[in-house]
Amino acid sequence: MKAARLRAVLAAVLVGSVAPAVASSGSSGSSGPDRAAGCVTPTTHRTMYVEELAPGPDGSPRLGYGSAPGAASIPGPTIEMVEGECLAITVVNDVPAATLAAMRTDPSLPLGVSLHVHGVKYTPSSDGTVHNQSFVPPGESRTYIWYAAPRVTVANRVVSLGTAGYWWYHDHVVGTDHGTGGVGAGLFGALVVRRPTDPRPDRTFVVPMGPGVSFGLQRHPDMPELVARQGERVEFVVIGLGDGFHTFHLHGHNWADNRTGMLVSAADETALIDNKTVGPADSFGFQVIAGEEVGPGAWMVHCHVQAHSDTGMMTFFRVESNEGGAVPAVSGHEVSGHEHMHHGAHP
Amino acid sequence: MKAARLRAVLAAVLVGSVAPAVASSGSSGSSGPDRAAGCVTPTTHRTMYVEELAPGPDGSPRLGYGSAPGAASIPGPTIEMVEGECLAITVVNDVPAATLAAMRTDPSLPLGVSLHVHGVKYTPSSDGTVHNQSFVPPGESRTYIWYAAPRVTVANRVVSLGTAGYWWYHDHVVGTDHGTGGVGAGLFGALVVRRPTDPRPDRTFVVPMGPGVSFGLQRHPDMPELVARQGERVEFVVIGLGDGFHTFHLHGHNWADNRTGMLVSAADETALIDNKTVGPADSFGFQVIAGEEVGPGAWMVHCHVQAHSDTGMMTFFRVESNEGGAVPAVSGHEVSGHEHMHHGAHP
Amino acid sequence: MKAARLRAVLAAVLVGSVAPAVASSGSSGSSGPDRAAGCVTPTTHRTMYVEELAPGPDGSPRLGYGSAPGAASIPGPTIEMVEGECLAITVVNDVPAATLAAMRTDPSLPLGVSLHVHGVKYTPSSDGTVHNQSFVPPGESRTYIWYAAPRVTVANRVVSLGTAGYWWYHDHVVGTDHGTGGVGAGLFGALVVRRPTDPRPDRTFVVPMGPGVSFGLQRHPDMPELVARQGERVEFVVIGLGDGFHTFHLHGHNWADNRTGMLVSAADETALIDNKTVGPADSFGFQVIAGEEVGPGAWMVHCHVQAHSDTGMMTFFRVESNEGGAVPAVSGHEVSGHEHMHHGAHP
Repeated sequence: MKAARLRAVLAAVLVGSVAPAVASSGSSGSSGPDRAAGCVTPTTHRTMYVEELAPGPDGSPRLGYGSAPGAASIPGPTIEMVEGECLAITVVNDVPAATLAAMRTDPSLPLGVSLHVHGVKYTPSSDGTVHNQSFVPPGESRTYIWYAAPRVTVANRVVSLGTAGYWWYHDHVVGTDHGTGGVGAGLFGALVVRRPTDPRPDRTFVVPMGPGVSFGLQRHPDMPELVARQGERVEFVVIGLGDGFHTFHLHGHNWADNRTGMLVSAADETALIDNKTVGPADSFGFQVIAGEEVGPGAWMVHCHVQAHSDTGMMTFFRVESNEGGAVPAVSGHEVSGHEHMHHGAHP
Repeated sequence: MKAARLRAVLAAVLVGSVAPAVASSGSSGSSGPDRAAGCVTPTTHRTMYVEELAPGPDGSPRLGYGSAPGAASIPGPTIEMVEGECLAITVVNDVPAATLAAMRTDPSLPLGVSLHVHGVKYTPSSDGTVHNQSFVPPGESRTYIWYAAPRVTVANRVVSLGTAGYWWYHDHVVGTDHGTGGVGAGLFGALVVRRPTDPRPDRTFVVPMGPGVSFGLQRHPDMPELVARQGERVEFVVIGLGDGFHTFHLHGHNWADNRTGMLVSAADETALIDNKTVGPADSFGFQVIAGEEVGPGAWMVHCHVQAHSDTGMMTFFRVESNEGGAVPAVSGHEVSGHEHMHHGAHP
Repeated sequence: MKAARLRAVLAAVLVGSVAPAVASSGSSGSSGPDRAAGCVTPTTHRTMYVEELAPGPDGSPRLGYGSAPGAASIPGPTIEMVEGECLAITVVNDVPAATLAAMRTDPSLPLGVSLHVHGVKYTPSSDGTVHNQSFVPPGESRTYIWYAAPRVTVANRVVSLGTAGYWWYHDHVVGTDHGTGGVGAGLFGALVVRRPTDPRPDRTFVVPMGPGVSFGLQRHPDMPELVARQGERVEFVVIGLGDGFHTFHLHGHNWADNRTGMLVSAADETALIDNKTVGPADSFGFQVIAGEEVGPGAWMVHCHVQAHSDTGMMTFFRVESNEGGAVPAVSGHEVSGHEHMHHGAHP
């Protein structure tokens, strides 16, 4: 019954998707502007290649975004912006049409992949949806423009919020017109937008929660450890995926429940937390000093839904001594394969 | 077993509901005061009619609150107050006794409907519960008094929080003594309490999430679009219903995760978000400028639980150009029937 | 399949648990420091006895922490600290080895109980986990050291967050290496860390949500009422347990969604709430003045997931008049057996 309902809904959506449905604007013609107000011209350019990876253990397809051909990963590359920056990203769809066709839940869905982003500013032509025709057919490419609009204040009054935050990007087309198949197959990554004065971390760890009970698409003990040296400024970016709700918990460290994890002033009474509910598409981040006050060690990081941690939704935040010694490895885990989880803030 | 347990629990509750259980106060007699301290006399009056509507597609009963006979809707009318205001609401129960009897999960539950509210101040006699005898039998009426207590500060120290916020009201009696049947059938609505200096929106959209995977009691493509003109100040009020957890996501716009969605000062580091976990009875709201920086367009608003959006928990925030042009309709949706979702702030 | 996976994961974890896996530090020898930096020596000492209680209605084992032999309770004693305090807690494991063996989900898990804490600072040797060998075998004892690190500011800039908050402690070893069996059986309690200038409450109520649909391990009408006198400063500490998500709702009172529930200044725009999503291991707290503006009465406190409140996840916050009268008892509940829910702030 649910499947029937789904088909009916999708059919209704797709009636309109054949004809052009791009947002129009009186000032820029029928196809609409291609960038948010404030972005005169993109100041940064990058290319993202969407590729098919080896299937998962259960044979399900895996897809990834990558910064170069053959470099796709899950999650995709972490993208950093600073408020005021305008980024043009050309997405190249290198996924075989047959793979995308097999992933469709409805044959009237168009074939393609897309790039939808949270938090920053874009016009409808860059929103990555089917109804705005903002997707990339197999073998083609399309340029999306994201504007990290800055906070604007007048006499200490905030007239525009800005876009600094811990966000994420993902497909919005594969499988269903919400990209459920694409996100589930691995088409997502983190976006960090900083204010110019924000402290830069020494390391950034991206921790996607779900689908299922995985970090990224892996579980303990396959999930790589997150390794840092004592005293380093470490940034965590947590992203909720799929259908489930989770709670992110880190041992030995806490943070403030706001944009940065840091407090603004002595009188700031933002809650301090070390455990946070994460629903689908929620994203947040924070910076800590590795081992501050608590020293080196193998600090658990896990979902605190007990059934989730018990079945593998955990890893270690392994803080190595800065005096030459190393924390003994726990449980025979090799620190390997985690480079896609670890993107230095100083490129 | 659950049903048996439920009956046992309800039976235990109802032992006490025959005898008067109204809170008493030494200063006001055995029946207790009828209004919160600070409300000398109600400054505003309104009447709410509770009525039976046409049943849902599956034949289940639907009930609604309305501001006039025959005007009941789901959700009910959005009520606005300003801190300091005291509101008397007379609730008229026009629902047939037979309908309420059929909705009872236990025959010892009293027949009636009620009005329970979040956020503002009321005495036990206005809390809408069975145990406080605060309900309205069929064919009768009862007056509830809500006080939007103001924030009180002394030398910049807050001694009373006030009650400004995005709240909601609902039945607490129909079906079970938590009003599960009443809320599920449609007996709920939004309450917005403003501080006197708060900016007033041009439009307010109420977005109830659930039960099931609906906005209000409708799904895409039946769910009406939320239509505004570019540059208008638009207010969203999101309310969680039923048993499920959801994530509210809006394309192209973001807001601060606080009382208003706006930032207080240049140094304010409240998190900016465009996706928020919403549990049952959670309510929040925010104001955005429609199309700010991103222009007109058909912006998706949806639950980001993938299985929910895929099965219809979505609609469009349709921002029309202010230069005379209109955004092309998407997917053949007619903009209609949404007036119950759209309550102008300037009546 | 899930059980098999669980066994595989646990087996992998436990490979490393035979050999010493304690974090090392160049400055303090191979066994690592036993306390967080800043704690020169513990300033407070207490002993916690872990004991087996009578089994639950379904025959499942129950365990509790207690401050004296024979005094174990569920939840365990509420522990209060002030920032700057360093606490040494000696845990005595008086649970029969056979009980712990029967609760193991995997025979290679070590037998023992532990004490893991949220929010405050501790070294790996005090983190209560299997991989850090931080547990207490049956018949033995072990001292854990918690440091309530203070907030440190330099010229109004916060250089260390401090640890003030509403936290909790729990077992991390019994049943699985996440303590799922221990927490489920009752091995948890609240930890309140105050800043020196925080107002002290007259009463503190600890409200654990779950497992299942219980407050603590009880349901309405067995769940005791939370009783206070009008005008008292009452503190609620809410803790999420198990696998489920809940929403904590209190009638007639609201609070600010920050560290204390109070607002910092007249311009503070933290959201006011009376309903909050609580995931597993989330913990928060707030202070209200009992009956402020609303008077004495029987105020419901319940999970607002409708199916949870309908099946017993509720009780009453019973505010007695301070003019000598008492609120009539509702529903025949006796106010009894709730002392473990009620820990005065002034010992």
